Amino acid sequence: MAGGPIREEAVHEKKSQLVSDRSDSRFSLLRSLQTYKGRAQTGRYLIEGIRHVARAWDERVPIETLFIESSALQNPYGQKLARRIRQTNVPLVRLAPRLYQELTRANEPQGIGAVLRQQWSPITPIDLTRTCFWLAVESVDLPGNLGTILRSAEAAGVSGVIFIDDGADPHDPACVRATMGALFSLKLVRCTLREFGDWARARDVAIVGSSPRGLMGYRQFRCRWPSVLVIGSEREGMSDELSDLCDFVLKIPMCGNSDSINAAVAAGVLLFELAGQRPG
Amino acid sequence: MAGGPIREEAVHEKKSQLVSDRSDSRFSLLRSLQTYKGRAQTGRYLIEGIRHVARAWDERVPIETLFIESSALQNPYGQKLARRIRQTNVPLVRLAPRLYQELTRANEPQGIGAVLRQQWSPITPIDLTRTCFWLAVESVDLPGNLGTILRSAEAAGVSGVIFIDDGADPHDPACVRATMGALFSLKLVRCTLREFGDWARARDVAIVGSSPRGLMGYRQFRCRWPSVLVIGSEREGMSDELSDLCDFVLKIPMCGNSDSINAAVAAGVLLFELAGQRPG
Repeated sequence: MAGGPIREEAVHEKKSQLVSDRSDSRFSLLRSLQTYKGRAQTGRYLIEGIRHVARAWDERVPIETLFIESSALQNPYGQKLARRIRQTNVPLVRLAPRLYQELTRANEPQGIGAVLRQQWSPITPIDLTRTCFWLAVESVDLPGNLGTILRSAEAAGVSGVIFIDDGADPHDPACVRATMGALFSLKLVRCTLREFGDWARARDVAIVGSSPRGLMGYRQFRCRWPSVLVIGSEREGMSDELSDLCDFVLKIPMCGNSDSINAAVAAGVLLFELAGQRPG
Repeated sequence: MAGGPIREEAVHEKKSQLVSDRSDSRFSLLRSLQTYKGRAQTGRYLIEGIRHVARAWDERVPIETLFIESSALQNPYGQKLARRIRQTNVPLVRLAPRLYQELTRANEPQGIGAVLRQQWSPITPIDLTRTCFWLAVESVDLPGNLGTILRSAEAAGVSGVIFIDDGADPHDPACVRATMGALFSLKLVRCTLREFGDWARARDVAIVGSSPRGLMGYRQFRCRWPSVLVIGSEREGMSDELSDLCDFVLKIPMCGNSDSINAAVAAGVLLFELAGQRPG
């Protein structure tokens, strides 16, 4: 656990007033971060639950605001975590139970969450090594699928994730939850399709797509480094414009009567294939 | 589309009385199939939605009862499907909207579903070929994960799925939904752990487990056929008894700060690795 010496003092909750009014601006901000518009306007996002807050803390992600609901924060580890974070002078919002219930999206609410600042990197100065590979996401319909894909991407060792245009939002609460904290360690880039194509061409990055109509089995592909695996929507696949940019289009051969597998599973199979082909 | 010549008659819905009473035995049966106990006692299970009913029909799975709610069955293809099934004298249950809403678990209910008979095969007479591989499931906590795994298993070409003891139920509605119909083409076996071990030993089947503590990277493993990949619970992994049976325990090497990926993704990565190693 990071965060300097620990003094086991009580959280000075009394010092932070209870927010119990729906029109309170602190509550309005939290609510707005559940919408795409609110996240885009503020450049912030929400995380929820002990595991996510603990991992953000461990990875030294700056926490802008901590929010708790004392009666729901019963877990001793969660209480300790809240005290530690408070000792670094992170602002605390104490929510009334009614407002917290309105806010939380957790199945089993743990009474703790935080506001973080989105961290985006520009595409142009990305350093490339010979053995790096990237994930690029054009569009994913279900935020939970996107989160599962980002979790796989981090575990497979991608150098980062490029979001093409605005077809997918990694800071959607359902996506954040499914990443299980992997989001905090990923380098995130957003750019237009044109910028993406220019970047790949200028730096000789192989663009690798996948499609049921791909001509090459994914295991026949021999990875040329550096490369970027691109993912399109579950239903529609990649756009024609993105398909045109691809140097390779792989397919996952399937047996039986199924013509598809879960999109997050397909992305995982391809990501770990690329990861496994890396030298060393 | 299977099912013989099609006559575009109206469904003779008038002939089947509307079920609008909660205590009607036909409704009670449908409700009971949403519980493990009800499924175990009757040996039946429920499917819901046009895609699932159509696939069951295409694959000539016997449909015991069709149920519809006329006002929700607006899709023309769904209506045609209902007419075709009715022409083969499958009993129809017409549910009142109120009862249907109580029954359905779909996010966007389509007004159609069916009762199917569970199809289980005994383990002993399973024929093995040199190139076959199986999936064995000891326990999966989330039915949706199990369904996604079964969908991957069918697409990867497993010969069938063995359920060890009763730690997982492939006929749970959430599992059935996530299989996207793959369940209908899979050979399903249930047996005790002891029977499983005896079967594998007698037939020289390699038992392949996976664990973060596995000693062999999954890509280093060279598949000896026939073999069976065993899956344990998302949280607890395989039981000690099952681990003791394993000839190999593989791990998926991970980078970054993550120590795990989604269980269904992990199963997919391993299933497609085994599938890809098959000769031919």
